[in-house]
Amino acid sequence: MLKPTGSSVERWESLGTESIHDCRIFTVFRRQSRSPHTKSVHDIYVLEAPDWVNIIPLTADRHVVMVRQYRHGVDGVTLEVPAGMVDATDPDPLVAARREMIEETGYDSDVIEPLGFTHPNPAFQDNRCHTFLARDVVRRGMPRNDRMEHTEPVVVPLTHVPDLIRTGAITHALAVVAFHWLLLAESTSQ
Amino acid sequence: MLKPTGSSVERWESLGTESIHDCRIFTVFRRQSRSPHTKSVHDIYVLEAPDWVNIIPLTADRHVVMVRQYRHGVDGVTLEVPAGMVDATDPDPLVAARREMIEETGYDSDVIEPLGFTHPNPAFQDNRCHTFLARDVVRRGMPRNDRMEHTEPVVVPLTHVPDLIRTGAITHALAVVAFHWLLLAESTSQ
Repeated sequence: MLKPTGSSVERWESLGTESIHDCRIFTVFRRQSRSPHTKSVHDIYVLEAPDWVNIIPLTADRHVVMVRQYRHGVDGVTLEVPAGMVDATDPDPLVAARREMIEETGYDSDVIEPLGFTHPNPAFQDNRCHTFLARDVVRRGMPRNDRMEHTEPVVVPLTHVPDLIRTGAITHALAVVAFHWLLLAESTSQ
Repeated sequence: MLKPTGSSVERWESLGTESIHDCRIFTVFRRQSRSPHTKSVHDIYVLEAPDWVNIIPLTADRHVVMVRQYRHGVDGVTLEVPAGMVDATDPDPLVAARREMIEETGYDSDVIEPLGFTHPNPAFQDNRCHTFLARDVVRRGMPRNDRMEHTEPVVVPLTHVPDLIRTGAITHALAVVAFHWLLLAESTSQ
């Protein structure tokens, strides 16, 4: 977890927590399923969520435009690559990834390619995370956040990323996956 | 997603699905939080889950003992590394990872080292996934599954793993993360 110094990102103030039975960015289902091995029937809990996207914005001189933001799950500030959800208005994951990059960083590129997809959690989620690479990104404006989001672009040399992961500055599993996809792509193109 | 041929792993039979309000391996909470930027108050949904572990069982000749199993989230059969939860009986992640490796593969080792941890989903989960490497693993028995689990060990050359990820045979994000940790560890030790 990144501990920012001199950052405008602040911790949200918790006003109380309660156990609940309904969700917003995912839906919880209970499924009754029979085991093919024991024939016994079990209640299985799964989350249905839209597909997710993330994207590595890479400048011509091989710097990555990352994002610093508050994350409610870990109640702390993280360093990630731009990411978000595929929604009904942008059913194309590439379009969704580009939108998130522009909104969260202000950077853009016309050269965006898919790197691959993973399942964030096959055990109890049905969705995929699609990863993209944006080459030769340039700054075209400021981040344009909605009321729920506040992101800061952080430009880091790609060569620093392994140490940022090793030292725990980058802890988001799907950001690590994104950099693994980039590594796989570059090891085949050589 | 792996499509096994000649495997004893079968698809579970779904007996119906309903939207629910309570969970087993995680707990859903709604938190009221105030934005430090807009000062507005929002309902935030988060999952509390125990920490997770996964482990790369590596033989002396650099083969990985992976696991084929049915996963309810994606309703399909996946190829992963051994993984599970840290529970109250095994609060030490290394002990939990070793237990999962033995249960899911029948392989064991006395040489287990931590590689690092990530947050599976900082956006709405609070937990960590700790990754371990088991060196010089040897087969000491058969998998010992409980009633909910049925795992098959699959031994693959470590050199095949990049193509297994590229071709979608391995799609579990946290398995990809595990192999990225191994790569980071081996690139510093050289």
